[in-house]
Amino acid sequence: MSDSLCQRTATELAALIRAREVSAREVMQAHLDRIERLNPKVNALVSLDPEGALAGAAAADERLASGAAVGPLHGLPMAHKDTHDTAGLRTTYGSPLLADNVPARDELVVERLKAAGAVTMGKTNVPEFAAGSHTFNPVFGTTANPYALDRSAGGSSGGAAVSLACRMQPLADGSDMGGSLRNPASFNNVVGLRPAPGRVPTWPDAAAWSTLSVQGPMARTVADVALMLSVIAGPDDRSPISIDQPGSVFREPLDADLQDLRVAFSMDLGGDLVVDPQVRAVLEPAAQVLAKLGGAVEEAWPDLTGADEVFRTLRAWQFELMLGELRDAHPDRIKPSLRDNIDVGRALTGADVGRAERLHTELYHRVREFFTRYDVLALPVSQVPPFDIDLEFPTEIGGVTMPSYLDWMRSAYWISATGCPAISVPAGFTPEGLPVGLQLVGPHRSEPELLRIAHAFEQATRHAELPPPL
Amino acid sequence: MSDSLCQRTATELAALIRAREVSAREVMQAHLDRIERLNPKVNALVSLDPEGALAGAAAADERLASGAAVGPLHGLPMAHKDTHDTAGLRTTYGSPLLADNVPARDELVVERLKAAGAVTMGKTNVPEFAAGSHTFNPVFGTTANPYALDRSAGGSSGGAAVSLACRMQPLADGSDMGGSLRNPASFNNVVGLRPAPGRVPTWPDAAAWSTLSVQGPMARTVADVALMLSVIAGPDDRSPISIDQPGSVFREPLDADLQDLRVAFSMDLGGDLVVDPQVRAVLEPAAQVLAKLGGAVEEAWPDLTGADEVFRTLRAWQFELMLGELRDAHPDRIKPSLRDNIDVGRALTGADVGRAERLHTELYHRVREFFTRYDVLALPVSQVPPFDIDLEFPTEIGGVTMPSYLDWMRSAYWISATGCPAISVPAGFTPEGLPVGLQLVGPHRSEPELLRIAHAFEQATRHAELPPPL
Repeated sequence: MSDSLCQRTATELAALIRAREVSAREVMQAHLDRIERLNPKVNALVSLDPEGALAGAAAADERLASGAAVGPLHGLPMAHKDTHDTAGLRTTYGSPLLADNVPARDELVVERLKAAGAVTMGKTNVPEFAAGSHTFNPVFGTTANPYALDRSAGGSSGGAAVSLACRMQPLADGSDMGGSLRNPASFNNVVGLRPAPGRVPTWPDAAAWSTLSVQGPMARTVADVALMLSVIAGPDDRSPISIDQPGSVFREPLDADLQDLRVAFSMDLGGDLVVDPQVRAVLEPAAQVLAKLGGAVEEAWPDLTGADEVFRTLRAWQFELMLGELRDAHPDRIKPSLRDNIDVGRALTGADVGRAERLHTELYHRVREFFTRYDVLALPVSQVPPFDIDLEFPTEIGGVTMPSYLDWMRSAYWISATGCPAISVPAGFTPEGLPVGLQLVGPHRSEPELLRIAHAFEQATRHAELPPPL
Repeated sequence: MSDSLCQRTATELAALIRAREVSAREVMQAHLDRIERLNPKVNALVSLDPEGALAGAAAADERLASGAAVGPLHGLPMAHKDTHDTAGLRTTYGSPLLADNVPARDELVVERLKAAGAVTMGKTNVPEFAAGSHTFNPVFGTTANPYALDRSAGGSSGGAAVSLACRMQPLADGSDMGGSLRNPASFNNVVGLRPAPGRVPTWPDAAAWSTLSVQGPMARTVADVALMLSVIAGPDDRSPISIDQPGSVFREPLDADLQDLRVAFSMDLGGDLVVDPQVRAVLEPAAQVLAKLGGAVEEAWPDLTGADEVFRTLRAWQFELMLGELRDAHPDRIKPSLRDNIDVGRALTGADVGRAERLHTELYHRVREFFTRYDVLALPVSQVPPFDIDLEFPTEIGGVTMPSYLDWMRSAYWISATGCPAISVPAGFTPEGLPVGLQLVGPHRSEPELLRIAHAFEQATRHAELPPPL
C-alpha cells in the first residue's frame, strides 16, 4: 500500500494530504523507501537528507492539523536540481569546485516551491554546471536511464527526470538552456516544460536579462506540470524580465475544445535535423493523434535560419560570463568540453554577440509570423533515443556523423533560440522499449494553451503511464 | 480664440473634441497656424504635412459625426519623433543617408497613437540617429530652445520637447537611451517619462530584447503623459519583452495620499555628479516641496557603482549592432562622435559585454534593495541648464572640465542603467529664465506610482504653466 502512494500524481497526492486521508509523513516515508530501493540503480538523487525530509513532513502534518492555510503542494516530497541553491543543503552544480558548497539561502524557485508546501528531500543530479544533455559529473557520477540502465538519462535535468520516472518524487524543478527540461523528459517518459523567458522568474542569476536559460516544471502528467507552474510562475521584482501574469492562470482546467486547432507537424524541419529512424517511427503516429483531437495537421515548419548561430554564440558568451573567472582559477577542474566552450565565448567579439542578437530578433519575428498561421508546432524533442551511457554525446545518428557535440540536439536548442515555450510529452517507445517524446512548441508566452494541447495529446495516448522496468 | 486652443492640455482638447465643442479641424488649424508662426524660430518640427494633417482632422470629425467609437486621443494633432517610422511620411533619423527615406509602414508606437485617434502633422527633429543630447543634424539643422534661442533644446527628443513647450502640439512621442526623454523635458519645461523597458513595446527594433533604449510619452502635464501612456503601453507580441499589464492602468486617477511617502533626495549622488550651481539653486527648494506633500525626505542615494561602465559598454555595443554596417558603407556621412562610438563598440570583446551584463545585474539588485527603503529617488535630470547652442556638448560644468562627451549627463544615463522608470518634471528657472527639471525615479515597473508622485509635485509647483517668451 505504502509504495502505491508513489504511483499517484502530485495532484492526487496533494489532495489526499489536504483531505488528511494520508499524512505527509506517510507519503514521505513511502518515497524514501522507494528511493532506498531504486536510487542505487539509477543514481538520480544526491545529497539526500531523509531525516530532514521526515522532519519537514512532520511539520507539514502539524501545520495542517493546526488548521493553518496550506499551499497547493503541501506535504509533497521534492528534490531540487543540484544547480538550484538550497539553504543549508549541499548544492554542487556537479562540479568538484563546489563539492562542499552549502548555500545560505534558497534560490527563488526553491523558495516558491517550499512556500507552496513542498518538503525538501535532497537534490537531483546534473551534468557539470548543467552543460550538456547527459547527466554525469565527477562529484556524484552518472545517472542511468531507468528504461535501460546502459543508456543516458539525458540532461541537464537528468536526475529530475529519472526520479520522476522511477516514482521517487512526484514533481521536479529543472532548467533549460538548450533542451535541459525537454531532452531528459523525452529520454525518461515524463513531461517537461520549457516556459517562455520570465515566466518562471530566476534569481539569483548572473545576467538577469538573459533569456537563453529558463527554469521550469517537470512531472509525470501535464496536469502536474500545470500545478507546479501555478506556484513557480508569476512576477517577482528580483527578476527584471518576469512576466506579470500571475501563476494562478495555470490553475484553470486543461480540458479544451481543440476543434479549430491548427497544427504544424515536422519530423526534421525540412531536412535540417538528422533524426534517428527509431525516433521517426515512434513519432509518425503522433500526427494522426493530433488530427484526431480535432485539429488540422499540416506538414510545415518555420524558417529557423540563424537559430544555430544565435544559440551557439549566446551559449558560449553566457558560459564565459558566468564561469570565465572560475575557468581561469581552476582550468583543470572543469570538464574539457565546457572549458572549450568558455574559451569559444572568450574569443567572441562584441560585434559577434551583437550579430547574434540581430539574428535572434529576426528569428523571433519569423517564428511569430509562422504562429499567426498555426497554433502549435510538433516536432521531435530529441533526434535520438537514449544513447549509450558511456558516450559523452552521440557522435553519429543513423550513420550520419555529427559535426560537433551540439548537433544531435538541434531539435531542442533551435527552439530555445526562438524564445517560444515548448513542452516534451511522452509519445511512445522504440522496439527496445526506450522512451521517445513529442515536442510541442507554441507562440510567445502561450503556455496556457500549450498545456491544454499537450494534455489532450497525453489523454489520447497515455504513454506516460508505462513505468520503467525496474 | 483659435490660438488659445493651443494652450489647452491634451486631456482638455480631447474632451472638447469628443463633446464636439470644437472640431478636430479647428484644433488642427490652430496648431498649424501657431507652427507657421513659431516653428521658424525654433526649428522643432520637420517634414510638416499641413494638407495631410487637415485631411486627417476632417476625417476625425467625420468619424465622430458618424457616431463611431473613437479613441482617447481622437483628433489631437501630433508630430512623431523623426527616428519613429511613419508610413508614407519622410523619416530621416537626422541622417543624410536617410534624407529621402519614406517608410512603408508605421512603427508600433505610431500605429498605437494613430489607432487612439491622433492625427499626424509631421515629425519632430532629432540629433543624427538620436545620438547625443543636443538636437542638430545635417538634414534639418539645429533645434533652438524656446526659453533662450541661443541655447540647446537638449535631445534626442529635442524637437518633441520644444514643440510641446511652444504649444505647437499637445503630446509628443520620444525615446530615451541615456536621457533623451528627460534631458529635453528638463531643458524645455515640459514633462518626459522614461518608462521601464517593455512598458511601451518597441517594434521594429534591431535587438528586440535590449533594455537600454525605450520609448515613452512627453507632454506639458503629468496627466497628459499618463493619458498618452494609457494608449502606448500594454503588451504586443512584436516585442518579446513587453510588459503584460494593460495600458488602461494609466487611466486611474492621479490624486493620491502621499502621507507615507519615503523620498530619497540627492543633489549629486554623493559627489559623483558635477552639478551646475544654478541647477542646484533651482532644485534645492524641491526637497521642501516633496516634504510638504506629506513624505519624509532624506538625503540618500543608491550605490550606482558600475552604472557608468554598463551604460557606456552597452551603448557602444548597441550602436555597433544597429549602425555598424552603415558606418562601414558610409564612414564620412556619419557624425564623428557617433562614428567613434560605433568604433568603440567594435573594439569590445564578448567578455566586455558579458562583464557589463553582470555589472548591470548587480546594479539592478542594489537599486531594488534601495527601493525597499524609499518609494522614490529625486535628483537633477540634467547637471547643467540649457547650454550654448553652438557647443556639441558641455565641456565643463561650473569650471570643472568634463573628461568625455557623456559625463555631463551622468544624472540621466546612470539612471537608464538601473532599468528603473524615471520622469522629468518642471522644477523652476535659473535667474536667466532657463528651465530646470527634477528627476523622480521609482522602483521596477512603478510607473503608476511614479506618475502620482510627479503629479503631486506638479500641482504643488505649477512651473510648467510658464510658457516660453516667444
